[in-house]
Parts: sequence; C-alpha cells; structure tokens
Amino acid sequence: MKYHKINEEDITNLRSFISDSDRFITKPTKHWDHDQFKTTHAMPDLVIQPVTNKEVEQIVKYANDHKIPIVPRGNSTGLMGANLTVEGGISLDMVKMNKVLEYDPNSLTMTVQAGIRLKDIEEYLQNKPFTYMPAPAMHWATIGGNVATNAGGLKAVKYGVTREHIRQLKVVLTNGKLYKFGAQAVKSSSGYSVKDLIIGSEGTLGVITEVTLRLYPRPRKSINAIIPYPTLDDAIKSVPAILASGVVPTTVEFMGRKVIDLWEKYANDTFPIRTGNGFIIVGIDAFTDDELKAELKHALDAVKPFKAQKAVVLGADSPEAKKIWGCREALLLAIQKSTPKMDEVDICVPINHIPDVLDRVDQLETEVGMRIPNFGHAGDGNLHIYLCSDDMSDAEYAKKSNKVISELYKTAKALDGNMSGEHGIGYARENNFESFYGKDYTNLLRKIKNLFDPNNILNPDKIFPLEDK
Amino acid sequence: MKYHKINEEDITNLRSFISDSDRFITKPTKHWDHDQFKTTHAMPDLVIQPVTNKEVEQIVKYANDHKIPIVPRGNSTGLMGANLTVEGGISLDMVKMNKVLEYDPNSLTMTVQAGIRLKDIEEYLQNKPFTYMPAPAMHWATIGGNVATNAGGLKAVKYGVTREHIRQLKVVLTNGKLYKFGAQAVKSSSGYSVKDLIIGSEGTLGVITEVTLRLYPRPRKSINAIIPYPTLDDAIKSVPAILASGVVPTTVEFMGRKVIDLWEKYANDTFPIRTGNGFIIVGIDAFTDDELKAELKHALDAVKPFKAQKAVVLGADSPEAKKIWGCREALLLAIQKSTPKMDEVDICVPINHIPDVLDRVDQLETEVGMRIPNFGHAGDGNLHIYLCSDDMSDAEYAKKSNKVISELYKTAKALDGNMSGEHGIGYARENNFESFYGKDYTNLLRKIKNLFDPNNILNPDKIFPLEDK
Repeated sequence: MKYHKINEEDITNLRSFISDSDRFITKPTKHWDHDQFKTTHAMPDLVIQPVTNKEVEQIVKYANDHKIPIVPRGNSTGLMGANLTVEGGISLDMVKMNKVLEYDPNSLTMTVQAGIRLKDIEEYLQNKPFTYMPAPAMHWATIGGNVATNAGGLKAVKYGVTREHIRQLKVVLTNGKLYKFGAQAVKSSSGYSVKDLIIGSEGTLGVITEVTLRLYPRPRKSINAIIPYPTLDDAIKSVPAILASGVVPTTVEFMGRKVIDLWEKYANDTFPIRTGNGFIIVGIDAFTDDELKAELKHALDAVKPFKAQKAVVLGADSPEAKKIWGCREALLLAIQKSTPKMDEVDICVPINHIPDVLDRVDQLETEVGMRIPNFGHAGDGNLHIYLCSDDMSDAEYAKKSNKVISELYKTAKALDGNMSGEHGIGYARENNFESFYGKDYTNLLRKIKNLFDPNNILNPDKIFPLEDK
Repeated sequence: MKYHKINEEDITNLRSFISDSDRFITKPTKHWDHDQFKTTHAMPDLVIQPVTNKEVEQIVKYANDHKIPIVPRGNSTGLMGANLTVEGGISLDMVKMNKVLEYDPNSLTMTVQAGIRLKDIEEYLQNKPFTYMPAPAMHWATIGGNVATNAGGLKAVKYGVTREHIRQLKVVLTNGKLYKFGAQAVKSSSGYSVKDLIIGSEGTLGVITEVTLRLYPRPRKSINAIIPYPTLDDAIKSVPAILASGVVPTTVEFMGRKVIDLWEKYANDTFPIRTGNGFIIVGIDAFTDDELKAELKHALDAVKPFKAQKAVVLGADSPEAKKIWGCREALLLAIQKSTPKMDEVDICVPINHIPDVLDRVDQLETEVGMRIPNFGHAGDGNLHIYLCSDDMSDAEYAKKSNKVISELYKTAKALDGNMSGEHGIGYARENNFESFYGKDYTNLLRKIKNLFDPNNILNPDKIFPLEDK
C-alpha cells in the first residue's frame, strides 16, 4: 500500500482547519505511540485533536483526497493496538470532543461527543434517576472507543453489551460527509442497520463523532455475592446452573486465587475472602429487597451441587463489595505489573464451554512453559487470558506466545466461539483473522471495507489484512 | 432493469436441484401473489419450496448466474409487500424449511430453519424452562420473516426486539455460498457484524436459511394491568412517566375505544373493560409475586397525575387477560375487516413524542377526510396507524393515502423517528425512503446492496429504488 507522506504543504493545509494551535501537534511525543499493552510502538507524523464535527469532516476529507493514513484514537486503553498509526500519518485524537450535548430523560437518551470518558458519563449521571448501563471495567476509556470495539463490561449478562445501548451515531465517512446512523427512536425496520456495522468496526469504516446513548432507569436495589469453591474448575462448572436456574443476574464473573494473589501484591491489600481457590461473583438488580434475596437464594441453591462453599453476600455499596469489585476491575493491571511483557487472548465461547478452554489453558501452561493467568465474564463465555513473558527473551516470548495464541484460537473456533468478545482484533491479531473466520467471510469484510474506504486510509492494517493471501 | 424471463431450459435446470416435484410449482396459484394486505398482486413465474441449505445455494446461484429475480418468502404475514415477485421470477417459499435443528439449553441457544413459524417455536418450548422472548403478535409469521424485518413485538420494552435475540444466521449470498454470520457465543468484537446488516434487510442481501435464537429463562411470574383513561390522549401522555418511574415493564401498549369497538364487531365479543376511552396495558415479569406487586403499584402510582382511572389487574393466564391480549393481537385483523382496503404507517418516534403523532393523525382525519384508526407500542414509540378506504373510489383512496402517508413521514422525520418500527419498508414504501433518509444515506445503502447483489436479483424493488433519482 502506498501512502502519501505528510509534507510541509499538508501541514499548512491541515492546520487551516483547526482554530487552536495547541490541538495541532506536529512533533508528537511518546504519549501517542502506544496503547495500554505497549507491545508495539508507532509514532504518528501528526496529531490533531478536533473539537467539532466540521473539523473532523475537513481532516478526513483531506486525508482521503491525499491518501494520508488517519487513525482515530480514544484514551488509549485498548489492548490490541487498534489506535496505532502503523503506517504513520495522522493520529486523530478524540479526547477533546468530550462534551455532553444533550440529556433527554423524556426520550430516555443522552447524546455525547465520542471522546468523553465513561467515568465522565458516570459522574454526569450520578445524581440522576437514569444510568448508562454497560459497565466496562476501564472507566477512563472513551465512549467512542467503546462503540468501536462493542465493549462488553460487567453487566452484559442481563443488560447486553454496548451495541444494545447505542441509539444513534454520527460518523464521518471518508468522503468527508457527516452521516447520522440510527435515531433517537427505539426501534427500526427501515433499511440496513449501518449503525450496527459501525459498532465494533474499530475505526476502520468511519470516524465516530457523536453517540446517542440509551438511558436506563437506575436499578433501585442491587446485591452481590461472592461464592468460593475448592477449585476454579468447580467454580466455572457451576455457571450454566446459575443461568439455567431462572434468575437473570446482572453479572457472573470468575476469578481464581492465582490472579487474586497478583492483585494483593499490586494493590498492597488483602482480598477479603480467605477460603476457596475459585470464585464466582454474582450480581442481582431488582426493585425490592425481597426480590433480591429470593433471586440470590435461588442462584445460590443452584450452585450447591458444585461444591460451592458459603457465599459472602455483599450490599452494593458495602466496603467489602467495593474492595472485591476494585480487585476485579484491577486484575488486568495487576497481571500486567507482574511481568515485563504481556499479551491477551479475549476469546468468547458458548457459556457451557468455558471449562474446555480453561483445560486447554492448563495444558498449554505445561506444554509451552508459560504462565497464563486468566479471569473473565463467565456469564458471557468471555475469557481474558494473559500470556506473561516473565524472564523469557523476546524471541522466546514471541515464539511461545504465537503458539499459545494460535492454539487458543483453534480451541475457540472448534467450540463455535469468537476471536474476541470485547477487546477487538486490532493490529495485534489481524494476521489470525482469516484462518479463524475463513477466506470467503474475510473477503466479504474486505469488500465492505473497500466500499467505505476505497483508499484504505482509515486505520489501516487493523482487524484483517487488506490483501487476500 | 433487464431480467431474464424463465424459460423451459431454466425450468429443467432448476428442477434438477429439487428432489420432490410437489415442491417445484410451475403454475403458481393466487396463494403466492400477495401479502397480508393484498394491496398489490404479483404472480411469480415459478415457486420453489426448498428444504435444505444445499437446495437454496443451487437455486440462488442459478438465479444469479442467469439474472432471474428471486424473492424469499415466509408465511405471507408481511404488510409492506416485501414478499412480492414484482419483477416476476422465482418465489422462494421457505415454509417447508421448518425444523428445529438443535435445542441446546446449556449454551442457552436453539437453532431452527428459517421457515419455522413463531407458533411452532412457542409450542416446542412450552414445557421447557426457556423461551424465545420476542413476542410479535402474528404467531404464524416465520422466524426468517421476523429476522428480515427485525420484528418487534409485545415485549420489546424490557427484552428488546428480534435483533437482540439472534445469535447466528446462516445465509446464502448471491454467489451461491452459505455463510455463517455470528456464533453460538454471546459476545463479539471480531470484525464487522454482517449478522446485524442482514437483520432487517428484508431479503434483499441474502437468503436466511438457519437462525440460532437466544433462549431466555421463562419468567416465573407475570402480571398485566389495563389502565383506563378518559381519553386516548390522557393515556398516551402518561407513558413517559411509567418509563421514568424506575420500573422496567415488559410491555406498554396503547389502544383507544375506537379500535376496541372494531374488535368487538370482528370478534363478536365484548371487551371486558367498560369504563374509559383510552387504555394502557402494562406488563411486568419478575421472580416473586411481591416484586410484581411492588413494581406494578409503583407504575400505577406514576400514572395517577394523568387522570388514570382504576386499573384492572390481570394474572398472566386469567381469562380476562387472555381476552384483552387476544383483542390486542387481533386489532390489525379487526381494522382490516372494517374496510375494503387498508394501508399502514408504522412510524417509530422517540417515546415522548407519540402525542405529537396522534395530534397530527387527528388533524389529518379531518383535513383529508379519512378514517385513520391506530394503536401500538407506546413503550417503544412505535405506532401502527391504519388508512381505511371505506367507501372511497380507488383513485380517491390512492390520492388521500399518499397525502396521509407523506404527512406522517414528515412528522416522524421532524421528530427524529424512523419510517418503520417493525414492519419494514418493502415494496409499498420504497419510493418514500430517499426523501425520508436523504440522498447520501440512501446512496450508501445502494452501494451495500450492490456489494451483496450486483445483479439485483434478490428481492428487487424493495426498501429503496436502486437508481439514484
């Protein structure tokens, strides 16, 4: 792929679209060359921080007309390198498009700019009777990034993922025009859902500038319980029983003592539950306390045959609950702290097949000789599996990682799973896509990419390689 | 558009793909020339009733190679003419692909062929602890048709529409290949969601042959209440208060005395509630009776300021509840019975703007001189508005209908609504699409259509006109 290298004339032209010089950065620092994992570094030639749709329209059109790569970027919490300017060009840093544009409780919607962080949305809504329901653990991720990866989060079992909570998107396509996909209205049977095509497309089809979120009545009552089991395997095997019991929990998370030990070191803190080596956290939302208790009792009864030990019941805002959720949300960082380099496999399998994946992980730890801690969303079949470099050489780590990654994708494929449940494919896994999903399917996605972005300027080298190999 | 007219050689070739001659109908009867509304009649040249994916693959490939129009068709309950062979060619009648292929409670999924009716899915699941949650009122519609229109139904407020309950589709594209879109796994952040592009595409992008449904634990307790109000306007204005109250009902339906009178005639029955002229039906699902009661009380308290009269509370399976739901589900047929010809506007607006639409309907009844009964899904902002011909001449009815339709679309557009909430655009409204959604957006959909179906053989003349005008 031949791109045009940004020159002085381009700088002059592009600068004319941006009113403030501090949002036009011609000498980018290391801040813009990596994502959360720092596996790959790629420095953009230019960073632009737009604040209006108009600015985005002009920049994208210019980039397209001049064949300059352009990579939309949120708050850099991604794990798969989707924000990297691997072909150079423009890093379109969206974090200054961070306004709440409209809060409309009457239509149960809220419209924000794409660069706003989840944390800011949560703060905006905290004293209001409505909430944005998806709950990704990374609160400082931007909503645009969440839409681009169809982020899941901690409440997907009951409430669904990001996709189900997006009413409308405004998106700049490569022709420089702003499109409105979806509506404030709830339902549509009115032609192809381009909105759903953009969701999860990791910035490769257009630049999301505005997002209309579905507001949801804030649950009146919430409760969590953490259930210890003798082993993680016992814990995981109980999950289908919870989901089949008739209760619909908000969350069913799993973690084992191994990752909790890492968190204790990372946080210099003590996990409040001392018994058990495998844990399930179950969350329940309801309107009344009695309903909470009845549902929880039913769920706990359902896991009794699986060697479940006495559950610890936690009020939604109790200090213990906060510590346990804090631990859960920091597990990624805790594991990352424990190793010089780290990579992740984010496969999602049918919910009853998590034990098969964990068995394979155990085998691979021994076969390959690598520490592979993991945790995840048991209720969704979505595992976060971490490949730790520890004291390996770079070459050894690369070789062993490739082995573990390809083996786990084989496992997921055989179980009718997906390569990624919520973190995306990005740059890191584009070369695994075609062997997972097949040539015909990948070629279809290539055609869709080509339709939206014939010059391949938008976030090149992401999701799948453009060339049919 | 120039198509190839089916000749004797095509008949011989196509017949070779189909093992039973009774599924290859060379002299189609009137059964295949219309939909539920019978507004337009179009006779196919040939009807084929496939039973396997392989048959569909061969037929579609042949049609594409020979430029023969091919129109997938379910059980003909559509209202917008999406099943009509308006260019002649093959009617691909899917009703014999009606098997349950897999029931898998462990992964909470069920896989069926596309031609199975909702009614059959309901019967299959009736003694099982899981259910397919969407509840379109037309129980004899096929699931393939439901997917093709992203059908809504009576429980969308809490549980979402068809889209949210489809895990995987198998779809034959025009190249004659079978594609798998989605997976049995719950979540995906793995490339473009082609599954979501197919959902709602009304048979214009591919032929859906298999559908993997999400199973949902059957709610343990359900309750309904019907709330009478002095006027329909009072009823409708109370809806946002219910939705903002913190309760998430399964359903919030509205109907007025006018349509109930039509049902009483149609069904030769008496509606059990005698007071009030406007009604809201609220449904609640929960795990315990106490929760049901608490949520219902809260919802009823929320509507008190809106002149709500004493609600009648109905157990889920009480005779009164059955009669009221039976009435609600038969309203379309009751209205249809009352007039020689009928057409529908199925707009969906932000939930707080239903009163604006109903005001406009009232004005139009007078301005245009037409009876325009209506009812709908208040909780989704989705109205079903019926244009009755009564004693008008065909010419007068056509002229007045066009006026009412275009005026109501103007209203919906101004309110950031959609042309159709759940019934689709089909053949009936393709000429309204571009003025509603704009040229740039329609051109983008045209490109997507062209990508999937370059010869325009799949369900031609549906959703939008292929030519940019």
